[in-house]
Amino acid sequence: MAALCLVLGTALAQSAGNEAPRLTLSYGQFGLVYQMFSITIATMGAGFLFFVLAQQNLAPRYRPAMVVSAIVVAVACYHYFRIFNSWNESYRLVGEVYQATGVPFNDAYRYADWILTVPLLLVEAVAVLALASNIASGMIWRLALAAFVMIATGYPGEISSDTGTRLLWGTISTIPFIYIVYTLFVELGRSLERQPARVQVLTRNLRLLLFASWGFYPIAYLLPLLLGGGLNASGIVAVQVGYSLADILAKVGFGVLIYFIALEKTAHDRA
Amino acid sequence: MAALCLVLGTALAQSAGNEAPRLTLSYGQFGLVYQMFSITIATMGAGFLFFVLAQQNLAPRYRPAMVVSAIVVAVACYHYFRIFNSWNESYRLVGEVYQATGVPFNDAYRYADWILTVPLLLVEAVAVLALASNIASGMIWRLALAAFVMIATGYPGEISSDTGTRLLWGTISTIPFIYIVYTLFVELGRSLERQPARVQVLTRNLRLLLFASWGFYPIAYLLPLLLGGGLNASGIVAVQVGYSLADILAKVGFGVLIYFIALEKTAHDRA
Amino acid sequence: MAALCLVLGTALAQSAGNEAPRLTLSYGQFGLVYQMFSITIATMGAGFLFFVLAQQNLAPRYRPAMVVSAIVVAVACYHYFRIFNSWNESYRLVGEVYQATGVPFNDAYRYADWILTVPLLLVEAVAVLALASNIASGMIWRLALAAFVMIATGYPGEISSDTGTRLLWGTISTIPFIYIVYTLFVELGRSLERQPARVQVLTRNLRLLLFASWGFYPIAYLLPLLLGGGLNASGIVAVQVGYSLADILAKVGFGVLIYFIALEKTAHDRA
Amino acid sequence: MAALCLVLGTALAQSAGNEAPRLTLSYGQFGLVYQMFSITIATMGAGFLFFVLAQQNLAPRYRPAMVVSAIVVAVACYHYFRIFNSWNESYRLVGEVYQATGVPFNDAYRYADWILTVPLLLVEAVAVLALASNIASGMIWRLALAAFVMIATGYPGEISSDTGTRLLWGTISTIPFIYIVYTLFVELGRSLERQPARVQVLTRNLRLLLFASWGFYPIAYLLPLLLGGGLNASGIVAVQVGYSLADILAKVGFGVLIYFIALEKTAHDRA
Amino acid sequence: MAALCLVLGTALAQSAGNEAPRLTLSYGQFGLVYQMFSITIATMGAGFLFFVLAQQNLAPRYRPAMVVSAIVVAVACYHYFRIFNSWNESYRLVGEVYQATGVPFNDAYRYADWILTVPLLLVEAVAVLALASNIASGMIWRLALAAFVMIATGYPGEISSDTGTRLLWGTISTIPFIYIVYTLFVELGRSLERQPARVQVLTRNLRLLLFASWGFYPIAYLLPLLLGGGLNASGIVAVQVGYSLADILAKVGFGVLIYFIALEKTAHDRA
Ligand SMILES: CC1=C(/C=C/C(C)=C/C=C/C(C)=C/C=O)C(C)(C)CCC1
Ligand SMILES: CC1=C(/C=C/C(C)=C/C=C/C(C)=C/C=O)C(C)(C)CCC1
Ligand SMILES: CC1=C(/C=C/C(C)=C/C=C/C(C)=C/C=O)C(C)(C)CCC1
Ligand SMILES: CC1=C(/C=C/C(C)=C/C=C/C(C)=C/C=O)C(C)(C)CCC1
Ligand SMILES: CC1=C(/C=C/C(C)=C/C=C/C(C)=C/C=O)C(C)(C)CCC1
Ligand code: NA
Ligand code: NA
Ligand code: NA
Ligand code: NA
Ligand code: NA
Ligand code: NA
Ligand code: NA
Ligand code: NA
Ligand code: NA
Ligand code: NA
Repeated sequence: MAALCLVLGTALAQSAGNEAPRLTLSYGQFGLVYQMFSITIATMGAGFLFFVLAQQNLAPRYRPAMVVSAIVVAVACYHYFRIFNSWNESYRLVGEVYQATGVPFNDAYRYADWILTVPLLLVEAVAVLALASNIASGMIWRLALAAFVMIATGYPGEISSDTGTRLLWGTISTIPFIYIVYTLFVELGRSLERQPARVQVLTRNLRLLLFASWGFYPIAYLLPLLLGGGLNASGIVAVQVGYSLADILAKVGFGVLIYFIALEKTAHDRA
Repeated sequence: MAALCLVLGTALAQSAGNEAPRLTLSYGQFGLVYQMFSITIATMGAGFLFFVLAQQNLAPRYRPAMVVSAIVVAVACYHYFRIFNSWNESYRLVGEVYQATGVPFNDAYRYADWILTVPLLLVEAVAVLALASNIASGMIWRLALAAFVMIATGYPGEISSDTGTRLLWGTISTIPFIYIVYTLFVELGRSLERQPARVQVLTRNLRLLLFASWGFYPIAYLLPLLLGGGLNASGIVAVQVGYSLADILAKVGFGVLIYFIALEKTAHDRA
Repeated sequence: MAALCLVLGTALAQSAGNEAPRLTLSYGQFGLVYQMFSITIATMGAGFLFFVLAQQNLAPRYRPAMVVSAIVVAVACYHYFRIFNSWNESYRLVGEVYQATGVPFNDAYRYADWILTVPLLLVEAVAVLALASNIASGMIWRLALAAFVMIATGYPGEISSDTGTRLLWGTISTIPFIYIVYTLFVELGRSLERQPARVQVLTRNLRLLLFASWGFYPIAYLLPLLLGGGLNASGIVAVQVGYSLADILAKVGFGVLIYFIALEKTAHDRA
Repeated sequence: MAALCLVLGTALAQSAGNEAPRLTLSYGQFGLVYQMFSITIATMGAGFLFFVLAQQNLAPRYRPAMVVSAIVVAVACYHYFRIFNSWNESYRLVGEVYQATGVPFNDAYRYADWILTVPLLLVEAVAVLALASNIASGMIWRLALAAFVMIATGYPGEISSDTGTRLLWGTISTIPFIYIVYTLFVELGRSLERQPARVQVLTRNLRLLLFASWGFYPIAYLLPLLLGGGLNASGIVAVQVGYSLADILAKVGFGVLIYFIALEKTAHDRA
Repeated sequence: MAALCLVLGTALAQSAGNEAPRLTLSYGQFGLVYQMFSITIATMGAGFLFFVLAQQNLAPRYRPAMVVSAIVVAVACYHYFRIFNSWNESYRLVGEVYQATGVPFNDAYRYADWILTVPLLLVEAVAVLALASNIASGMIWRLALAAFVMIATGYPGEISSDTGTRLLWGTISTIPFIYIVYTLFVELGRSLERQPARVQVLTRNLRLLLFASWGFYPIAYLLPLLLGGGLNASGIVAVQVGYSLADILAKVGFGVLIYFIALEKTAHDRA
């Protein structure tokens, strides 16, 4: 574990160096990512206020899930704030275009964010499941380990501008990814049975959202390749916008849906 | 939906480039907008404190509306803070006048703000309605979609200094706008019937405020044209002051009025 | 109303231009204002914590007044923070004295602050009255209008270095001022009758404080004239120190006194 | 009173000018003060969290004292933050030593802090006493006045590098100081009688702490003289470290001890 | 005690001077530490939110421990924020490597942090013990003193690049260290007996965590020596990463484990 940590750490550290092919972005390309980061900060902040302030509407037993969501989006808000600043330091308006300043864009913040938030989201998902069905006690540890491997092996691919490397690590990373998504999907399905009707509908939406948002990450990861090779300007833009949208869905959207499930259950418990 | 998002995103991103005809503002023009932005930050902050602290006076069922208002003004406070900074970076005092520095004023923050806050305000309005009458369950989604289209189509017009383009997109954007305002107006009217007398008065004021504040936005949008063509100095000043005043009314004013409606209802419920 | 707003807005905006006769302040003069602004920030912040944290000692019906005070001092804290920064940007230590840098000191923050906080203080005063006597329902609106006129007409005089202009606008502004102070004084007197003895003593103090603090503003306004003509160095220092002290009394002092009145009443209600 | 204020204000304002004999500090001297200020910020912040969060363990009647302590340390945190920044702006690393930059170190923040916090601490001490014995109602006003005179007359001495002046004002300032410490000591002693045994032990500790921490201030004030004349480098270092330690004891230590007294009493009341 | 303080203070102050052998770090080395500091800030912040928000799930008697944990991680968050900034000011990207800027990296923040947080953690540990067994009342003072000596004697070794000095002070520091760890270990073992089964498991984990995290510090301290002499680049990197990981475990991990113990006990108490 500690060894894995150090390996990951070194990979993290090396990233910036590799990933600065000193690109030039068009005015629109730079601005799109800039605006996306700013709106993501605002959304995470809004989510934080929501998860803190709206807890009072839920029965006490459903509040821990909101606490977890509040922490997840606060951590993301912090990281997007740093990502936003790093983006601004990495490019400079020269005439009509944005040129790299030489300060490399720090993509490692994103993986640092995931290392902290993905386990928390898994805890939240399992907690929701635990309210509805019997969960084997070891599941959360297996999921957390898989998440760790998924992120740790995805990173070397992320920072490489070489198509082969990107594909190789992406494929390895996809194995634990499939394990996680499959497990959650099956368990969420199993948990449906004993739920009241309206909770069933919402839980189906949750399953869908989980599928859509988590599935978005590997797609964003592949966009540079699909958009014609390497980490060129439009590839970088696509990755950043894609990950940001996925983060909004997987963090704020996920938490809000769980809030509505908990709201239904609170009403149901009281009735 | 995602496609629409990307289209909008690209439009957002292109804005800054187009909108920098390197104007020179008089001392008073620059300062008026500067002061307006600062006072809007203070008002949004004050509104936030109010919506958080005054919740305790309301029965629990009316508090979610205050949570939504608190989030709306917090998001607006964030955006006006960035707008304020962008304004300061865009102009520089040279002798007696303010000259453009070349760093374009980032108008996209405003549309980013609307994309997040208008749906929240619609949720709040519908929630208020739902307390008083039966709302068809799909209405909130239709309103949200209309809002999205209204903002997305308004943006290309906003950033254009060409009168024709401004008029064209403005007209398209007005179609969903009319749908929203009309729907809310009719539904708020319908909800009046079963309310106690003092709530009726306040709800009529709410309808009026909604009408006045939302109607302010397209007027501000047209001011540059009315003030004699193009995005010249006084046009830009008029737009910024107009939107800021409209935002204060539509966000803080709206929330405060709903607070007083909820206060009446709390008293009425307890009696 | 909107017209008045725009008029005021323009006046606000023009202020900075007029008010920069590029003065030189002595070391002590600059430092006195500097320290006064810093201590005012600290006092407003302390007041905010007090009004938020001490609410719990009051019966629920007295808490809204504390919420209003909390908002008032938070807004003032924001404005004094900007005033403090503006002061630092306006002067530069050159040898033994502080010389104007050319960036004009932004006095408009103060009037922006008053536009937001004076109506809130009036609401708070009327709310206190309403607990003790019947208040004609239109009074708050008349007071708010008078306050608006008082501030809006005071501003053109404030930014003028011409004695005649200062006197003219000051006199006009004094008319609504007298209306407000007189009304509150009379009504506070009237509210005394049905109160318990200890509340009567505190309410008399409140009347006194209101009189003393509000009366301080026009005196500070006149100090430059009294100190020998125009807006020279000592005139500016006197105005800034005077307004800051008045703000501390009228905002924090006022709120704290109301807190003690409410504390008495809470004890009295429970007995 | 207002006159006294202005006198003090002027003294405050003149301080910076006098107190910049452009000293050179060794690496260790600069760093010791730097580190002391940083740790004081952290301690005040920690104290603030404690006083806010730990209130819930006390019966409601003991919470106001915690609110006062929370405000005191928040105000001190603000001032130490500014003191810390002022320290950094006043010296610059040149080779192996720190040389004065010419921007004078602003010692007035400390006296501004005391003007606000000492009365609050006296209120807190008297409130603790009032729980245990009858306090003559005028005492708090006499103590506050004495505190004001103590601080106002100490300041001219503080900013003087002349030994005679320092001694003269220090002696004058010591008169009200003795009055305050003596009064509190006697009253705390008197309050002991009717207390439960464990509260007596803690109150004796409180008396000791008060004695030790308040006594620290005049000692720190004299350190420059004791360390061999004038405000030389080691004199300045000793004063700053001394005052910081005294502030930690008199603010955080005092509040924590009162918390434990209140905790005992809460348990005792319930038993 | 005060004398010890001053001795420590001087040592703290001298550190920066000694510890700047103007190293050059590789891109990966600088970035690894940078990222580690950033993720530690995020983790401490997340821990703070958790300890504040999750208190509501515990019975009142277990909340004080969470308050202590909240304060510990808040103080650490502050210090890591300053450590992060100091790191960035100490090195500058020159071509492919990071060169020292001459502004020394301020390691004293870390020891300042420990001086404040280690006693708090000991208080928390003893409080947990006190819930389960009789604790001799003097133990907390003996532990606190030992902690003080451990940190005060460790510091001179930390800042020395001389192997002999490092070993000497490290050895001295290890004596109180062993006393602390041994005492807690034995007491935690003793407290196990009268606990419910699931609490026993968790308390055993706590003992393990304490052992592992506290043991990590002296190992990190020795890493520079193990990695081949002196405070060279990889030595510095190893120390910083090691201490950061240890801090996360000893502060956030420790608090979270205690939370789960308290959660079990809350359920047990209610059953
Ligand atoms: C499969 C795969 C990936 C998956 C990433 C995921 C699934 C991240 C999820 C993040 C979440 C849910 C964050 C919310 O806080 C990578 C690493 C991009 C690398 C390519 C292969
Ligand atoms: C009709 C119309 C517009 C309407 C904008 C509106 C109605 C915005 C409302 C914003 C709100 C309510 C924000 C509150 O948070 C645009 C886009 C200016 C473009 C021109 C046509
Ligand atoms: C009569 C008069 C004035 C009065 C100002 C007042 C009375 C301001 C009160 C402000 C308060 C109470 C703020 C608290 O938040 C002016 C405008 C200086 C102009 C000169 C004449
Ligand atoms: C006697 C004396 C002094 C006493 C200062 C004191 C006693 C300050 C207490 C401050 C506190 C308690 C602050 C806590 O917030 C001075 C002014 C140094 C001047 C020299 C003589
Ligand atoms: C034995 C030893 C050390 C131990 C340090 C420890 C045990 C620090 C614990 C810190 C904690 C628990 C912080 C949490 O807030 C030093 C000083 C590195 C010096 C070398 C010898
Ligand atoms: Na840039
Ligand atoms: Na992320
Ligand atoms: Na500018
Ligand atoms: Na807006
Ligand atoms: Na300056
Ligand atoms: Na003001
Ligand atoms: Na410096
Ligand atoms: Na102080
Ligand atoms: Na750097
Ligand atoms: Na540390």
